[in-house]
Amino acid sequence: MSNVYDKAHELSRSLRDSDEFQQLKNLHVQVEEDEVAKRMLDNFRNVQLELQQKQMQGQQPTEEEITQAQQQFEMVQQHEVISLLMEQEQKVSTVIGDVNKIITEPLEELYGNPDDPENVQ
Amino acid sequence: MSNVYDKAHELSRSLRDSDEFQQLKNLHVQVEEDEVAKRMLDNFRNVQLELQQKQMQGQQPTEEEITQAQQQFEMVQQHEVISLLMEQEQKVSTVIGDVNKIITEPLEELYGNPDDPENVQ
Repeated sequence: MSNVYDKAHELSRSLRDSDEFQQLKNLHVQVEEDEVAKRMLDNFRNVQLELQQKQMQGQQPTEEEITQAQQQFEMVQQHEVISLLMEQEQKVSTVIGDVNKIITEPLEELYGNPDDPENVQ
Repeated sequence: MSNVYDKAHELSRSLRDSDEFQQLKNLHVQVEEDEVAKRMLDNFRNVQLELQQKQMQGQQPTEEEITQAQQQFEMVQQHEVISLLMEQEQKVSTVIGDVNKIITEPLEELYGNPDDPENVQ
């Protein structure tokens, strides 16, 4: 078992050393150090989080909330560093998704791939 | 980047070779080959899935549904192989959870640990 944990730590280190993560870190620091950018992004994340929580509870967001979220999204998109940060988050998120798929391959062999339409119950 | 994927494949292989996973696989095969056990477990999983989907949609399960789920749980628990399989699934799930925590450590440094009460928004 210890081998699994060793391999997980090796993977974690290689992720930390990757260009994708290092760029994400740099952009993150840039936003953290820019008070206006930070407040803008925090506001945007909070609105997103509230919307998600509502949807998870089966509630429909109001038209006003959707408009507000869209406006905030357009605003943060126009901020160069924030928009680069969000792009980079998307890249890292794709890598993490790929990594998760690779790791759970052994389980897929037992339980099937939930993304495979043949396995939809 | 390729190093991250190489490391992910190494981790996946070590997970597949682990005693925890091999035992899970053996128990899974035993249940699959036992028609009664398989039907029992499938029924139980379906009831569980329906309950989860209801709860995710913000609906309260009825008292009848809860009783039905409890009864099915007690029934599968009494089946030796199924109960061993469920125990083993729990062990493997713990390992996967630990592995995920290790892998996402670099991200935690940027975004904080969502399980840390200080980071609750």
